[in-house]
Amino acid sequence: MKAMEEKIRKEGKVFPGHILKVGSFLNHQLDADFLMEVGREIADLYKGEKIDKIVTIETSGVAVGFAVAAVLHLPVVYAKKHRSSNLSPDLYSAVVHSYTHNTDYTVYISKEYLHEGERILIVDDFLAVGNALNGLMDIVGQAKAETVGIATAIEKGFQGGGDALRAKGIRVESMAIIDEMSDTELVFRPQDR
Amino acid sequence: MKAMEEKIRKEGKVFPGHILKVGSFLNHQLDADFLMEVGREIADLYKGEKIDKIVTIETSGVAVGFAVAAVLHLPVVYAKKHRSSNLSPDLYSAVVHSYTHNTDYTVYISKEYLHEGERILIVDDFLAVGNALNGLMDIVGQAKAETVGIATAIEKGFQGGGDALRAKGIRVESMAIIDEMSDTELVFRPQDR
Repeated sequence: MKAMEEKIRKEGKVFPGHILKVGSFLNHQLDADFLMEVGREIADLYKGEKIDKIVTIETSGVAVGFAVAAVLHLPVVYAKKHRSSNLSPDLYSAVVHSYTHNTDYTVYISKEYLHEGERILIVDDFLAVGNALNGLMDIVGQAKAETVGIATAIEKGFQGGGDALRAKGIRVESMAIIDEMSDTELVFRPQDR
Repeated sequence: MKAMEEKIRKEGKVFPGHILKVGSFLNHQLDADFLMEVGREIADLYKGEKIDKIVTIETSGVAVGFAVAAVLHLPVVYAKKHRSSNLSPDLYSAVVHSYTHNTDYTVYISKEYLHEGERILIVDDFLAVGNALNGLMDIVGQAKAETVGIATAIEKGFQGGGDALRAKGIRVESMAIIDEMSDTELVFRPQDR
């Protein structure tokens, strides 16, 4: 998605440790018009597929997942990272290793909101090594639902998670794929649209 | 908003300790079509006001804040509850007391995304005692921006936070106001629309 590449070039800030900050439109401030455009692009890429529900993960997946859901007129379920008192005790869960913080955390989805046979599109803001997405796919599998595919706003292609998923036959669509990143340079993988 | 009252009656579940679970459409699964309708209602209620930006708080405020922002074609900034390594060090912050968990936590907004003179609509999912909203208003004040008003999906009127804000002259619009709540009964405050 050319508009995503342009947005990253214009507003993204690269920090040491391969950190890309996009707080102006995706991770702190949300550019609602732009994210609705992202939602329409993702919906269009998956238009041949029957999809019953969007699954994403809090917090930064919520806006882009919601945008896709709004375009497709579907519900979106977001996995929670904290087992609060408000959460039903009947849960699917998966342990996710955080590459950034080098810690493990658990993500939860209530069994009320994922059902056998549902066709799920998993949406997230970033795809790097892919641990969070693997955790979500694991949960979808626990519910005997099916992952139709994955859509992300920004893939750090140089971290390999997206290509590892593709190698397993999973459809992964990322609005921008960054193959090289430094303070001075961003190289995007060529994509058709 | 009659549709919100009906949604709560149909899908809400009351638990001991005045807990209302609305995980089917607002707090875990998000009913995107319904929340866009809520966004249109809030936008319509505030249509006479100049608004520059929406401010909300993670995680459960993000979807409803985003919906309002999408309708109004505005950016939305969500306050963060964790000071992660990805967050700029230049922050506004406020300490919020959690009535539910009887603990204090700090909320943060980067100084990059709130500016002097901006007219802010604060949006959240729930309004009970109002501590989170007071924290957000405090942050808006620190930035020398102005709180135009508050809009929430569900107000627990019996906890008094909304009426305390109204008594200070702050405009508060809640899509449904629950004045009495028990396992067997929900009493909504009459509203015009």
